[in-house]
Amino acid sequence: MDKERFERQLAFLMEADKLKNIYRQTYTRADDLPPMPEGSNVKAPYPRRENDAEHSFSLALFAAVLAEYSNEPLDVLKTMKMVLIHDIVEIDAGDTYCYDSAGNSTKAERENAAAKRLFGLLPKDFEEEFLGLWREFEERKTPESRFANAMDRIQPLLLNLSRDGLSWQEHGIHYDQVAGRNASIKEGSKDISDYIFGLLDDARDRGILS
Amino acid sequence: MDKERFERQLAFLMEADKLKNIYRQTYTRADDLPPMPEGSNVKAPYPRRENDAEHSFSLALFAAVLAEYSNEPLDVLKTMKMVLIHDIVEIDAGDTYCYDSAGNSTKAERENAAAKRLFGLLPKDFEEEFLGLWREFEERKTPESRFANAMDRIQPLLLNLSRDGLSWQEHGIHYDQVAGRNASIKEGSKDISDYIFGLLDDARDRGILS
Repeated sequence: MDKERFERQLAFLMEADKLKNIYRQTYTRADDLPPMPEGSNVKAPYPRRENDAEHSFSLALFAAVLAEYSNEPLDVLKTMKMVLIHDIVEIDAGDTYCYDSAGNSTKAERENAAAKRLFGLLPKDFEEEFLGLWREFEERKTPESRFANAMDRIQPLLLNLSRDGLSWQEHGIHYDQVAGRNASIKEGSKDISDYIFGLLDDARDRGILS
Repeated sequence: MDKERFERQLAFLMEADKLKNIYRQTYTRADDLPPMPEGSNVKAPYPRRENDAEHSFSLALFAAVLAEYSNEPLDVLKTMKMVLIHDIVEIDAGDTYCYDSAGNSTKAERENAAAKRLFGLLPKDFEEEFLGLWREFEERKTPESRFANAMDRIQPLLLNLSRDGLSWQEHGIHYDQVAGRNASIKEGSKDISDYIFGLLDDARDRGILS
């Protein structure tokens, strides 16, 4: 074992643990809210928001289970690695809410600096692979990145629907904004896009999305 | 699209979201404890325990980054799927602390019933694949399951070391118990086992593990 190499890998993995402290706007699923375990310092009440590690876990599982619906043949391992690391830059750059236009104007610069530092913790070969996967995800020009982006859209949307649109209502988000944001799902999966837009139309009809 | 099939896949993915509510004994990494985001219902103070979704996220990333240290050639995609679903049974069966012998005597029965219900939400092909992966993980007889189990050992151990052994001290766990629990790491990776046992010896010398 090359100890220096291994310790660089560990340093990155331990740094990535900070994704557990980056909270998103999306709430976890509305269901079965259990009491906190004895001795826990985290207090109820729920609902609570999900963090980036939880979100990335969900995307990896979504990719594993839904890969068959990709418009194009998919390298599933590559897709799973991509979704696992796609939000790591938020450790330095923070989570920018997708409907926050001011935050989004400075997002690229902040995230590029973060990518350089965070992936730079790794040995060179992994630095290049992960930086490449992260850029590929952002650019959405390959089957894997189009599908990974589709998962990144539908996962919070399904959670939000399970809470009757709570985070949309908190931020005063309208149907047209949600439809615009989710227009790119069809680039990854036309089938999933059709299904999801059916849910959105239904949400509008039910009055939980204005 | 076969809508019934897709909806079974979604039902499983939404059920798996409950892993975010199953808390473990391990604390998240000791570092940079940020204020909670505005509007969050989860209150500080940290440290807080990690949940199964966060733990599974970490294991998938560990597997992606450390696969080269496996004793035997590895199917990395299979390993990643295995770690993503290895704790799903805890949604019904709860987390059994690894040093709790009473809890561990009933663990198999509780977890088998849980596996039947939870993987049964999926279409038949996925039910068989995931049930197979879960059993394979438990049995530790293949390269992927031996390596996945090694990741499942070292991830909480590294977090615990980052907190100077806090969860060991809370439960009065001794060096011999930790060494016994982690003896199987070498079945997955001799190199990683040697490194980790070096850390444990060092922890004992520093007095954070008695």
